[in-house]
Amino acid sequence: MSSVITPDSLNWLYRGTSEIFPSQPDSNNPEENLEKLIEKSDRPLRVKLGIDPTGTDIHLGHSIPFRKLRAFQDAGHTAVVIIGDFTAQIGDPTGKSEVRKQLTSEQVKSNAENYLEQLRPILDFDTPGRLEIRYNSEWLKELNLAKIQELLATMTVGQMLAKEGFAERYKQENPIFLHEFLYPLMQGYDSVMIDADVELGGTDQKFNIAVGRDLQRHFGKKPQFGLLLPILLGTDGSQKMSKSLNNYVGLKEDELSMYSKLEKTPDAIIKDYFELLTNLPLDQLPENPRDCQKLLALEIVTQFHSQKAAITAQKTAEDLVKNKGTGATDAVPEYDLSNVEFPAKLFYILNASGLCGSSGEGRRQIQGGAVRLDGEKISDVNITFDNLEQLSGKVLQVGKKKFIKLV
Amino acid sequence: MSSVITPDSLNWLYRGTSEIFPSQPDSNNPEENLEKLIEKSDRPLRVKLGIDPTGTDIHLGHSIPFRKLRAFQDAGHTAVVIIGDFTAQIGDPTGKSEVRKQLTSEQVKSNAENYLEQLRPILDFDTPGRLEIRYNSEWLKELNLAKIQELLATMTVGQMLAKEGFAERYKQENPIFLHEFLYPLMQGYDSVMIDADVELGGTDQKFNIAVGRDLQRHFGKKPQFGLLLPILLGTDGSQKMSKSLNNYVGLKEDELSMYSKLEKTPDAIIKDYFELLTNLPLDQLPENPRDCQKLLALEIVTQFHSQKAAITAQKTAEDLVKNKGTGATDAVPEYDLSNVEFPAKLFYILNASGLCGSSGEGRRQIQGGAVRLDGEKISDVNITFDNLEQLSGKVLQVGKKKFIKLV
Repeated sequence: MSSVITPDSLNWLYRGTSEIFPSQPDSNNPEENLEKLIEKSDRPLRVKLGIDPTGTDIHLGHSIPFRKLRAFQDAGHTAVVIIGDFTAQIGDPTGKSEVRKQLTSEQVKSNAENYLEQLRPILDFDTPGRLEIRYNSEWLKELNLAKIQELLATMTVGQMLAKEGFAERYKQENPIFLHEFLYPLMQGYDSVMIDADVELGGTDQKFNIAVGRDLQRHFGKKPQFGLLLPILLGTDGSQKMSKSLNNYVGLKEDELSMYSKLEKTPDAIIKDYFELLTNLPLDQLPENPRDCQKLLALEIVTQFHSQKAAITAQKTAEDLVKNKGTGATDAVPEYDLSNVEFPAKLFYILNASGLCGSSGEGRRQIQGGAVRLDGEKISDVNITFDNLEQLSGKVLQVGKKKFIKLV
Repeated sequence: MSSVITPDSLNWLYRGTSEIFPSQPDSNNPEENLEKLIEKSDRPLRVKLGIDPTGTDIHLGHSIPFRKLRAFQDAGHTAVVIIGDFTAQIGDPTGKSEVRKQLTSEQVKSNAENYLEQLRPILDFDTPGRLEIRYNSEWLKELNLAKIQELLATMTVGQMLAKEGFAERYKQENPIFLHEFLYPLMQGYDSVMIDADVELGGTDQKFNIAVGRDLQRHFGKKPQFGLLLPILLGTDGSQKMSKSLNNYVGLKEDELSMYSKLEKTPDAIIKDYFELLTNLPLDQLPENPRDCQKLLALEIVTQFHSQKAAITAQKTAEDLVKNKGTGATDAVPEYDLSNVEFPAKLFYILNASGLCGSSGEGRRQIQGGAVRLDGEKISDVNITFDNLEQLSGKVLQVGKKKFIKLV
């Protein structure tokens, strides 16, 4: 979203990016230039992104900085994913925050693994040198009072209270506990310890990333760049995506659920979704808004499942919608496979279920390319299934209007 | 200075005391009662007082809480003197404060020893079980981030900013560095670690001592009592005693310097000086203000030197003042002992120096009790000195007006 004219070769850097700081290019400070650093560096940059392992379910909103991280990986750089296990294991010492419940190291490890597993479709886990996963307890548990005092002394109360979040709470006389001032410093110290060149985060992370720059400078290191990404609106198109508002799409959702939510993406935010959640060229999107929605849904389901699954989900969803017209939301007709003797040819089932008037019509429909099983076109006229389990739960379809659920 | 009627047996507790908190007796909270604790405890109480070993010269203002500490010792309790070596060795990480210069552990140790040496005239160093000296690095250097987070979480930013000193600085937008919030917590944690029953301090220490109570409660211990003592005004009678204002009396000053400063104590503050710096009964002080000043000066010089030294100082000072009238501040006549053949009788020196008209007059003056050597009355008519060193530098005096310095 930068308005600066940049080389096409850096499109991956600017796509969907809210802000890079120090700004690019910065004539006041020509030395600090991320573009130059990316172009000239003779080593992979170290690009930091932190994970809070207190929760387990992540949604598309969380995925945005990871998609940018992947873009850095693809450009040859090293993603350094920081698992914030130290804080999670301490929890909130005031015991007042449900969000900061104290977790055991096993819980944290399990959460972190779960989190990383969900990132598999996004990040490059396999190319050597492209991914480093670090637990910040590695260095934070070693900090003593002298070092912590040194960290604290780099900032004033006024600077800390100017931070978004703190400022309002202080003004409204809502208590801010002193240990809360540690969190930005701990996050910043992570940058010192892993020698981050760039830190990614949502726009709400600007303060913390800037603290990282200050601390790196304090410890005689080169300060990182901050790259901020927008906070994603939810599928309602109005509020920040969040589980509690039920306007989210979880990365672990099944293809049909994911598709169904995304194909209703409001027009007002669909361009942002394309920009932030896909790599499709934004100037080649369909003109028809409905086609746009479908393309978005297909594309994102494909990322997290497969193209095949996406197409099936699309079909199923469309069929479900069509049947809504009949007044019955659950009106997909079912056919009970227990009447079928296995192994069975598909054309036989087309006949037996009533989708076709005869086995012969079934064969002709398959030959004509009109038959799909869970959205996938069947081209083998003699396709045979060995048992009920191969078909149970799938949707069998002839042409655009006739379908049945096999149970 | 408490207006509460208390048993005479606790006079030592209340003399000069500004405040005890929780207050005594506290009907709202009858359990928390220092008087009762003192009367009923079956073990010596642990009475804490901290020393900042960044400076070396201490003055009468500093001595006040140590005098109270001695009163606790005399009542059978244990003085726990905390040497704040941890903070002194860190210094001020911002490097902005001259006061909090970073010191080596050798410097800290030497400062602490020097400090303690100056307290010898005040504290009971000898009775077993009455004095414990602890360096707080013993526990503070062991603190890790988890524990420090726990300490910080016991307080809010609002509570900390309400502290005298912070409040004004924050209002005036003078920077308060975050690590400054650690100091009250570190001092409070000292109370936790040494199981303090009482902490002594100046009235400016109320906040820090209260933090100690909170932390003790947090760690499941019985909170200490705070006993606050006034900040002493300087010899100018108007501003807090301080070296930089040159209105101080240092504990290491020689007797004449100490005497000369104290015998000019302004009337407006002399009663406070008696109350805070001596154990004399306040209802038996001389009525004549000049006598009061002299008594105060004699009494305090006696504490830090000896009665003999105090008397000599008084004489010397008086003589100096008298001679001021002649226009010569250094007009004490001298007598050169190198003219004397040792061993020598004192009555001979009285004659030779011209203080008496003959050796016989010298003998008679000694017999009449009019002769003093360095303020000490000489009664032995035949007193003999073996060599020059026994007399050199001393003041020899006959009656109230005639005196001479032997050199």
